[in-house]
Parts: sequence; structure tokens; C-alpha cells
Amino acid sequence: MAKTNPGRFFEDYAVGQTLHHAVPRTVTNGERALYHALYPARHALYSSDAFAQSCGLSGSPIDDLAAFHVVFGKTVPDVSLNAVANLGYAEGRWLKPVYAGDTLRSVSEVIGLKQNSNGKTGVVYVRTRGLNQRDETVMEYVRWVMVRKRDLDAPAPETVVPELKKVLAPADLVVPEGLDFSSYDFALAGEPHRWDDYAVGETIDHVDGVTVEEAEHMLATRLWQNTAKVHFDLTFRPDGRLIYGGHVISMARALSFNGLANAQMIVGLNGGAHANPCFAGDTIKAWTEVLDKADTTAPGVGALRLRLVATKGGKPFDLRGADGKYLPEVLLDLDYWVLMPK
Amino acid sequence: MAKTNPGRFFEDYAVGQTLHHAVPRTVTNGERALYHALYPARHALYSSDAFAQSCGLSGSPIDDLAAFHVVFGKTVPDVSLNAVANLGYAEGRWLKPVYAGDTLRSVSEVIGLKQNSNGKTGVVYVRTRGLNQRDETVMEYVRWVMVRKRDLDAPAPETVVPELKKVLAPADLVVPEGLDFSSYDFALAGEPHRWDDYAVGETIDHVDGVTVEEAEHMLATRLWQNTAKVHFDLTFRPDGRLIYGGHVISMARALSFNGLANAQMIVGLNGGAHANPCFAGDTIKAWTEVLDKADTTAPGVGALRLRLVATKGGKPFDLRGADGKYLPEVLLDLDYWVLMPK
Amino acid sequence: MAKTNPGRFFEDYAVGQTLHHAVPRTVTNGERALYHALYPARHALYSSDAFAQSCGLSGSPIDDLAAFHVVFGKTVPDVSLNAVANLGYAEGRWLKPVYAGDTLRSVSEVIGLKQNSNGKTGVVYVRTRGLNQRDETVMEYVRWVMVRKRDLDAPAPETVVPELKKVLAPADLVVPEGLDFSSYDFALAGEPHRWDDYAVGETIDHVDGVTVEEAEHMLATRLWQNTAKVHFDLTFRPDGRLIYGGHVISMARALSFNGLANAQMIVGLNGGAHANPCFAGDTIKAWTEVLDKADTTAPGVGALRLRLVATKGGKPFDLRGADGKYLPEVLLDLDYWVLMPK
Repeated sequence: MAKTNPGRFFEDYAVGQTLHHAVPRTVTNGERALYHALYPARHALYSSDAFAQSCGLSGSPIDDLAAFHVVFGKTVPDVSLNAVANLGYAEGRWLKPVYAGDTLRSVSEVIGLKQNSNGKTGVVYVRTRGLNQRDETVMEYVRWVMVRKRDLDAPAPETVVPELKKVLAPADLVVPEGLDFSSYDFALAGEPHRWDDYAVGETIDHVDGVTVEEAEHMLATRLWQNTAKVHFDLTFRPDGRLIYGGHVISMARALSFNGLANAQMIVGLNGGAHANPCFAGDTIKAWTEVLDKADTTAPGVGALRLRLVATKGGKPFDLRGADGKYLPEVLLDLDYWVLMPK
Repeated sequence: MAKTNPGRFFEDYAVGQTLHHAVPRTVTNGERALYHALYPARHALYSSDAFAQSCGLSGSPIDDLAAFHVVFGKTVPDVSLNAVANLGYAEGRWLKPVYAGDTLRSVSEVIGLKQNSNGKTGVVYVRTRGLNQRDETVMEYVRWVMVRKRDLDAPAPETVVPELKKVLAPADLVVPEGLDFSSYDFALAGEPHRWDDYAVGETIDHVDGVTVEEAEHMLATRLWQNTAKVHFDLTFRPDGRLIYGGHVISMARALSFNGLANAQMIVGLNGGAHANPCFAGDTIKAWTEVLDKADTTAPGVGALRLRLVATKGGKPFDLRGADGKYLPEVLLDLDYWVLMPK
Repeated sequence: MAKTNPGRFFEDYAVGQTLHHAVPRTVTNGERALYHALYPARHALYSSDAFAQSCGLSGSPIDDLAAFHVVFGKTVPDVSLNAVANLGYAEGRWLKPVYAGDTLRSVSEVIGLKQNSNGKTGVVYVRTRGLNQRDETVMEYVRWVMVRKRDLDAPAPETVVPELKKVLAPADLVVPEGLDFSSYDFALAGEPHRWDDYAVGETIDHVDGVTVEEAEHMLATRLWQNTAKVHFDLTFRPDGRLIYGGHVISMARALSFNGLANAQMIVGLNGGAHANPCFAGDTIKAWTEVLDKADTTAPGVGALRLRLVATKGGKPFDLRGADGKYLPEVLLDLDYWVLMPK
């Protein structure tokens, strides 16, 4: 027993600690193909080398969310093995596309700690960076989780709550080097709607749905080397095998192709809530609200800030009840920035 | 809502229209491996680079049916999103092997239209071509589907029913450049039976069976970027989640290895009927009838015309009832040409 | 029917026979990614090219067990299609790492035969070698299976029972050329425990569990081109679709990461028993007992002999009942050698 990883408990964290997460991962065309088998992903930049090259990139990158899942997965053994809840994300930025052949690893810094008043748990804030084989940061994000204490008598640490941006400013977004949408092929991409055609406040029902299966979410979650027991061991929770929240994010993003086919690249993650748990048998659908628009200096490239909501029933565009809480059918409320041709 | 793709209705088609289908796709060794995970595919030419090279090719191609599924998948949003039924295939030809790294896109021409007498639906005939990154046509086929009208009062178009070959003539078949079976290794390929050993009228029970699962057919269908809702959303049809007909084709073809291990390459699709729907839990088996034989000018290469029947029960070689209709256990009746060593 | 493979029966084998198994297979990054999707595999050497290069290899190999499964799968049509039971393994050695792009084929020699006293079945011993495209042996092992007779009146062959090593001696193990653990990064690998930290007799409960699904084990078994009907056709056995024993081996090995993260490479298989059948819905857990330790001449590299036990319930470290038989919850009892940094 001594040799297995018990995970860190709340009192094991200190502000300023650096966690070098284990098990680097070389991502290849195999991961790329699996992403397309697991999600109805159709954004052309991630589907076709030729299309990506026509947009100024060297080839089709690994899906932005696949890169996120790999980076995130590495943090689980050190950050969330004893987590009670994943509370939030902020300041997520994609800094460099990840290509087949790249090797990713993750490093986190503990940037905040706050013991809960019940004395049994506390909130841990980490800023995680994903690095490639050249030690370039390919993405970064802040996540905070509620973690159990091992020893309820351990003293509470000094409370440090980091100041986090509610929303990334357009200037914070990094457009991949060379990206150029000035000769973008809308017909090949699948929809005619360009950045100019989207208005702040506009909502889009993405219409399509996928009923999720046990085998699929486990294949996905393992592929990201995410080790959280709840996603694999059906005997672990009385209510069933919990689906990794990232599986819902990827499914909803892929479904959003229908109406947002030109929202090619994800560059910012402002925030996100896994509003309710998802289990096999749920039929995931998605809708979007356009929250903001911004220009970029890259040729032909605009940015859209979107709310992506995944549901397992209910009506499109319903989000919260009269009590202000998420409706029980809402799975995900994600706030992110994408790049789109103007 | 305006931004999502409602699909085309019958009155949206006109003879002579060209449909440039969206979302090109780079196929890689990832797709290759997934094909082998999804189907019990064992034809040596598609399993081993060394074997393919010994047959005069540059390496092991992507399975012919995988290429077909990718090309077909791209047409779904433009051709069959509002289809009531997939009525038939004809004049399908594989013109060039597809290799890992190739990028495929699809273009269709509307070649026929016929409104049904009920005034609610009509038949649309399209000739689809799959093109690679060098704009070479890698395959082509004709498909006709029954499509709903949006507006029942829309006038019926002039009826145009294309003349289609019932069967491709041997001269229509394209043998891949360089293909040479003159030093073919039958032991490595798995069976001793050569072209000479098959007789017209001969039937083969392929014996093996696979009970299909929801997760598998969805992984496959997504991999081909086929977006038809019926294959993914369990709430869409009262009788269950319909399995993509192409999944049945690939499963039956792979099962046919046992008895047809040397039927290496598919070069022609004369016709095909999805006789009954397939659902998860069905156990697919297959049998073959040899319909014709033809020589080719390539060294050591003969052609066989085969009927491949997939079933979910019943007895081998039973196809139609006394009423002339397909028996309820028949899933697929496919008429195709293969290349085999002489 | 004459054209399908009925498999060999007991009287079809003769000591000294060489079986050239069919369908060579090129393994790629696609197979690599699928292995990581199918099993919670996290050993760093197989996950990261950069990590493998820091250990003196040219890149990250295909998982040792994936290589085993591919080699094993090819033997099924010739060895175990009419097998009643898989009785044992011995003298398994991994001789060269397999890399993406390598093409594997298998050759077996019949090294023993013994008809059972019931006259209906017999035991067949084969030594199987896996060869790459350069005709180098990448692995070898002995397997013996109980096979049905076709004709009960066929005369019994002379009994030949090969003398097999109960355990490979340390000198029998082949350390991959260039392997060097002298600057091994324990933090990146995921655990601090080195060879010196393991003691003979020590037991490790690997804690994590995976509830297995039908779709997953079929994807795996097909990927290895294993054609045994019992793994695919739900109608074949009254008790359900039997999971390929190799799926349990790979699942248990991957789960053993938690406590054996530095047991990087498998180099020897001393023996193994599939103690009880595994079906979808079973939750696989694993525990290990350290059986022996040995030094090697490679820099920083030690060897550990481990017993890996997979279970579907019960308590860790329980193996046999008072009657000396495996407990009903035990799925696998595997005896193997690994290489680990000192």
C-alpha cells in the first residue's frame, strides 16, 4: 500500500509549491484519429492538413481540447485524486498549436488555498501549464478544486485567494503564429457564416444529439491518462460511473459545429462549470450564446466569446431556475474565446 | 437556428447541380488502426506494408471501404440529412488506393430527380467523387435516396432517371498501378484458394459472427464524419439507434476473410441494398455467392464478382421469401468486384 | 464451407511441424494510441518519445504486451481455433522492442503432444516466435492448449512433453540494446520507488479498478486480429461473451502502474494462468507479489520477478482456497520479469 499513490490532501499543499506532474505523453495521428472517433468533430482546420496549410499553419493540429485533456489528465494524480468537486476554471489560454509527434508534460503552481469553514475540506487553486518537448508552454489555465483533509486536526493554512480575471481580454488571446484567414474557404469549412454574421446576444441551438455510452467515455478518459477512479470503477459511486467533465466539453464543442463551423480554434477559456453529473445513457445536446466579439491583428481573423451549454434534456436556452441555480438538465456552462474568419 | 444546417429538401435539388461537400479529411495510420479495431479485417494487403510492397504497391493502403466511408460521410449533410431511405448504389469504382497522409474531399453531381406519386417525397440521384489532395479522383459511385419535400406545394421537377449500369463490365474496373500478384504469398495471406479455385455459382458460408455494440458503431460512424442523427441520438427513433449501413458492409466484408482471404482489393460496387435495419445486439454473420469471374491485364490478377450477404440470424444462403422480398434476417445484399491472385 | 478455415484438430499436429501464421501486421502510432485508450497504461517509456530517448532507446516502443497480443493473435487460427482451454505459458522472452512502422508476423513450432486419457482431446505445445520485417525475432514464448480431436478413432501420437523452465533465469533475460537507466527521471516517471525499494515477498495492492465493457474488449481483441469466436459472438456460449485473457493481462499490467510505475519494460514471461473467465461488467483490480530480484549488466537497470494477480472481487492477496484451487474471483495469475531503474 505504501507504494501506491494516495493522492495529496488539503494539508499537503502550500502556496508557491510547484508540482511536476508525471508521465509525459507523445501525441500522434493515433490520438488525432481517436478524437474524431470519440466526438463528432468536424472543424476543418483539425480535420485536414491541406485546409490547415491554406490557413497558414504547417499542418492540422491536434484538437485544442485534446491538448487540454492531455495536460489536465497529468494533473489528476497530484491535484484531484482526493477532490470532492471541480469548482472552476479561469485564465485558460492556448499559446501554441500541438502537432502529431509533440510530447506534452504538465507543471502546476499552487496559487491559492482556503480551508472551508467545516474544517474537513479546503479549496486548492493551481495554475497549470502544458509544455512541449521544447519546453514551450502550449497552454495554461487555472483550476480550483475542493480537496479533503487527511487529518481534520491539521491547522488551516493562511487563506490566499488569487485574483483571477473573470474574462480574458482580447489582448490576452494569443493567435497562433502565421494564422491567416484571408483566403479562407467557407464552402470546404462547411458553413457560410463569418465573424460579421454573429451578433452579441445571439443564441444558436446546435440541434444534434449524442446518447453517450460507457465504453466511449472510458476510452476517451484513459486516452488522456486521467486516473480518477470515479470514471472507471462502476462500484465506486452508488449513482453510477461518472463521466469525465472533459468528455462533455468535447462532445458539446463538436456538436456546436452545426452553427459554428467556422469557430475554428479555441484560444481562451474564461470559465466553466460542470453543472450536473453526466452518466451513460444521457443524450447530450448543446446550445451557444454569443457573449462578445473582438478583432485581432491577424489577417482575416476575428475572435468570438461564446457561452457553450451542454444539456441532457430540457429546452434550448434554458439555463437556470427561478432560484438562480442551474437547471438539473444542464451539464456544462462553458465560457470561451474562439478564432473565426472575418 | 438560422445558422444550423437544415439539410436539403427534394425541391432544393436540380439536375446538373454540383455539390462541393465540406470538411476535407486527412486519413492517417490512426484511421488505419481504428479500422482494424472496429472490424475483424485481416486482408494482408491492408494489414502489412511489407505484404503490400511485395504486391507492387508503395505500402499498405487505407482499407477500400474506409475510403468509401470517408467519401460517403462528407455527402450526408448535403444529400441525406432529410432522406427517408437510402435506395441504392451503382457504378462504384475505386480508382486509386488511399494512403496514410492523403486528404480526401467529396464532390457530387445531381444526375437524376423523380418526384414520388404521393407528392411528399422524391428520389435524388447523385454521382459522388472522392478526391485526394492532388485532385485525383480516388473513387466514385452513384447513390440514390428518397428525400422529403419541405413544401408539399413545390412543383415537381422534370423527371430524369439516369441510365445506370446494372453491373460494371470488367473493362470498367481499374487495377491499381503497379499491382502484381505474380509472386503472391498465399501462406502469409492466410488461405491457399486462388482465383482459379472459385466457380461462378459457388456459395461460401463465412461462419464467424460478431454481436454488435452501440459504442462500436458510433465510433465508426463518427470516424467517417457521418452526421446522420439516427446513428447517434437514441431518442430520435422509437425502434432504437439505427446502425449506419456502412458499418454492416465493413463488418460483413471483414467476416468474409474466412473463405475469401485472397479477395484482396475491392474495385467495383455494382449495387447494394440495406435490406433491413441493424441495431446493437444483433449478431452479424455473412455469406457469399460468386456471381462472375473476369481476367485482368495485370500480372497474376483476376477479378471476381461477388454477392455479399449479411444476416442477423436465419440460415446461410437464404435471401428472399416466397413473396420475393428480402427475409427479415437479411441486413445487406451487396454486389461488388474484387481483385484476387490467379 | 470447404473454403473456410475449420482450424486444426489434435491429430493434425506433429512434433517438429512449423506453422507459418498468416496476416503480417504493420503496427503504427494508431495501435499505440489505441493501447492507451483501451488500458490505463502510464509507464513513461511507452508514453513519451522524449522519456524513452532519455533511457537510451530511439523512441517510445509499442507496449510489450501489445507486441505479445499481435504475435499471439496470428497463432489463433492455427493453434487455438478448436481449443478447449488455454493451459499455460512458459519461456516467454521479449528480445527487441517493437516500434511504430514495424511489421510483425509469427511462426510456431510444435514441440510437444500428449493425448488425454479420455481419447477426445489432447495437449499441444507450441513455441511461437514473433518476427519483424528484418526477420529478427522480437519475442518468443511457449504456449500449450487442449485441442479437440476431429476423429476420435485417430491414433494417439507418441507422447512428447517438452521440458520447460519453470522460471527464466536472470541470464535468460535480454535487456534492449542501449537501455540505460543511469539518468532516469523518477519524478517524470511518476513514483520514487526504485529497484532497491522492493523486497522479495513484498505485496502491493494496486487499488484502482476498471469495470470492463463489451465494446472495449472486442476493440482490443480485433486490433490484435485474434479471431476466436467466443470473444465476439454473444450467441456462441451460454454464459456470455468470453473476454480474451490477454485483455485481462493488459488491464492488470496497466493498473499495476500504481505502485510499480518504474517497472518499465516486460522482458520475461515465466508462466500464467487464466484462473477464471472474465465477462463484461466485471470490475478488474490487481495486486502484485515480488517473487525475486536480479541484477543486470545494463547501466542502472535491475530486474524484478513479479506475480501479477487480477481479480473481479474478493480481497487483495487472496489467491487460492483451502482446496488449493484458485478462488472464483481470481482472473489471472501471471509470473513475469520486468526491468526497473536501480
